Amino acid sequence: MRIFDIIDKKKHGGRLTDVEIEYMIEAFISGKIADYQMSAMLMAIWFRGMNDHELAVLTQAMAKSGDMIDLSAISGKKVDKHSTGGVGDKTTLVVVPIVAACGGKVAKMSGRGLGHTGGTIDKLEAIPGMRTSLSQEEFFATVNKIGAAIIGQTGNLAPADKKIYALRDVTATVDSIPLIASSIMSKKLAAGSDCILLDVKTGSGAFMKTFADSVKLAQKMVAIGTHAKKKTAALITDMDIPLGHAVGNSLEVIEAVDTLCGKGPDDLTEVCIQLAANMLYLLEKGNIAECQKMARRVLNNGSAFEKFIAMVAAQGGDISVLRDTEKFPKAPYKKSVLSDSDGYITKMDVEKCGIASMILGAGRENKDSVIDFSAGILITKKYGDRVKKGEKLAVLYTGKRERLEQAENVYKRSVKIGSKKPEQRSLILARVEKNKIEKFFSGE
Amino acid sequence: MRIFDIIDKKKHGGRLTDVEIEYMIEAFISGKIADYQMSAMLMAIWFRGMNDHELAVLTQAMAKSGDMIDLSAISGKKVDKHSTGGVGDKTTLVVVPIVAACGGKVAKMSGRGLGHTGGTIDKLEAIPGMRTSLSQEEFFATVNKIGAAIIGQTGNLAPADKKIYALRDVTATVDSIPLIASSIMSKKLAAGSDCILLDVKTGSGAFMKTFADSVKLAQKMVAIGTHAKKKTAALITDMDIPLGHAVGNSLEVIEAVDTLCGKGPDDLTEVCIQLAANMLYLLEKGNIAECQKMARRVLNNGSAFEKFIAMVAAQGGDISVLRDTEKFPKAPYKKSVLSDSDGYITKMDVEKCGIASMILGAGRENKDSVIDFSAGILITKKYGDRVKKGEKLAVLYTGKRERLEQAENVYKRSVKIGSKKPEQRSLILARVEKNKIEKFFSGE
Repeated sequence: MRIFDIIDKKKHGGRLTDVEIEYMIEAFISGKIADYQMSAMLMAIWFRGMNDHELAVLTQAMAKSGDMIDLSAISGKKVDKHSTGGVGDKTTLVVVPIVAACGGKVAKMSGRGLGHTGGTIDKLEAIPGMRTSLSQEEFFATVNKIGAAIIGQTGNLAPADKKIYALRDVTATVDSIPLIASSIMSKKLAAGSDCILLDVKTGSGAFMKTFADSVKLAQKMVAIGTHAKKKTAALITDMDIPLGHAVGNSLEVIEAVDTLCGKGPDDLTEVCIQLAANMLYLLEKGNIAECQKMARRVLNNGSAFEKFIAMVAAQGGDISVLRDTEKFPKAPYKKSVLSDSDGYITKMDVEKCGIASMILGAGRENKDSVIDFSAGILITKKYGDRVKKGEKLAVLYTGKRERLEQAENVYKRSVKIGSKKPEQRSLILARVEKNKIEKFFSGE
Repeated sequence: MRIFDIIDKKKHGGRLTDVEIEYMIEAFISGKIADYQMSAMLMAIWFRGMNDHELAVLTQAMAKSGDMIDLSAISGKKVDKHSTGGVGDKTTLVVVPIVAACGGKVAKMSGRGLGHTGGTIDKLEAIPGMRTSLSQEEFFATVNKIGAAIIGQTGNLAPADKKIYALRDVTATVDSIPLIASSIMSKKLAAGSDCILLDVKTGSGAFMKTFADSVKLAQKMVAIGTHAKKKTAALITDMDIPLGHAVGNSLEVIEAVDTLCGKGPDDLTEVCIQLAANMLYLLEKGNIAECQKMARRVLNNGSAFEKFIAMVAAQGGDISVLRDTEKFPKAPYKKSVLSDSDGYITKMDVEKCGIASMILGAGRENKDSVIDFSAGILITKKYGDRVKKGEKLAVLYTGKRERLEQAENVYKRSVKIGSKKPEQRSLILARVEKNKIEKFFSGE
């Protein structure tokens, strides 16, 4: 077998065989296929795509290039969740305790943030003492005992994805739906859960800007998961507006705690309930309506919050700051962003909002940046809200006073104020299962 | 400027600016752009192509990456010729003396053969003593004095093409018409002639298998040449049948001598006259009809042959073998290939014929192969000829007796015999100039 022939076949729109795909990944990892050959292949895939079967085989080969985590030491079915990333997306902190409180098992590995989007691990580390790196025994024991643990990625998961992604990143082949699907799913397959719920963000602040592309990505990922005998589903959720009001690590933990105590913002609460309900549905805890009811109940009766407390305690975190969020370390500098005009907020540029938060110190500009946990933004006026000139739009928090002005300028430019109240947006746009899509809004 | 953005632009079908293209070639040669980025770019070009302007700028940048040969020391206008390669294509040996005999100047650099196609330099070296490597002064002086010289490629011509071609060769991006056009023309532009005639071979034995693709390639090359202020034209000529009867180095020189003496095969003679006439036309020696007449005259009156003798003598070759071709060293082993059946030759697989010749020792299997000058094939029955069972189809010549059987099998499989006399084929299918194409056959 020669990579030349495999590239040539894909270039001409041919279907690759399982053996060809498996050879390609193996030989690339072992160095028999050069980077310049793989990058030509990736560009050919950018143009020709891959059908569901090719993609499933590719993704499994990528997953099998490294450790395949065996979660069988944890009793019962395990469910995983993945978000394609957004601004203010603290859903994992809320959803995982809900699922655990309903009897589900979540052995979750999460990532760190880079650029304008945050990462769950950074948020958790805003809790003093919280350990996000556990031994496998401790990780399994925590999930067995409490029902949930959230740690940083361990082991050598999908090294083929790492190597391929590094190449895509410098050869303009990142924006390929099949390649994105295989990258995400290779790590999910390696992480070992039985069920996978995907939260595909859509809109200006998401990697997928259009509903149509988000559905395509969701369908590809669901097909890959299903082929690998994982129960897989996806929700398409809105990322045209930041989720909730808090952006920044400890600010987001506080908002997650509020939500777990039934006092969170409506949009965040609703998205968390739908995500959790779908995870419970994949675990066969009931039909969707029943699972939604269960999720609401554990939020309202405090048991989801207690699960969160138990999980944080098991991972060494200081639970006193969760019982009284006023105890979280505060940023030394803050500034209110005021409206320049009267009207309604008609648009929020999610990416600019994320960048403002990064400027304040809440995110990483590059891999070596150090995060300021207390930095970030509390949004006081959101999409659709009426504002008056001089009224507060948001409050910025930082440890670096000199960053306030730049962040204020960026944030201001992220908010468009118009004279007409805009239409309400859907939070959950669609649900994708194998060969099935339910749309929850009209139009498009 | 970042190569990432340039790849991304081309990938989405954008037009590259001159500055982007020039940066790309310069930075690739200097090592600032990695091979894996260039191979992704080449694949994007494979899919998106390049318009005439982009391609002209690319080709000039590739030409300028190395030496640009200055032929101004040679008086008058110089004309170059390039063939895209075929089996039995000894036209350069005939055409160059014709043009010189008509007062044109040809300072020609030619290549060696690889695989199933032969190279002019190998053919010339079949003449004992012939030097194909001259100093620049000697090269110029010979062309000034005699009107023609043919040498191997000297200097550092279009190193960007060399580096890009090496990458295309292993990433399945060779078969791109714009990339083929830029590769050929970058070397032609660097070689310094004022006029360029391209012989684009078409058919089963050519790189371009279809007439339509051959026209596209011709048009692209003519556009590049014209943009670089070179008078450029192309002929599309048939390579569905080997050209002439001889395949192999000294056998082809003998056939070229026969042709120069007015006793060559009809197909080869006709193609040589048309090529030479078009070169003379580019040199503004008259209209096409007048140039054809001139070419025929110098073939018939012996002056083209005398030019060949003079050129070979100037380059140190033994002209006695040309005056009496019986003096050429003979292959020690030969074998006749006999027909297995009665009928007409309805198809000749040119590539297989070339491979049979290579097996006999006339061509290079790889870059280190040593050529056996006297090895090759004399074809006695060609396309359209009537043959009887047991009748001689060809004679094989070699220095390696053990190769005869394999070559015979391959040659036999290259000839299809059917019951019906096939239609006659056109030798010259079309002529391409800037914004102009003349077709010399009906159909397609």
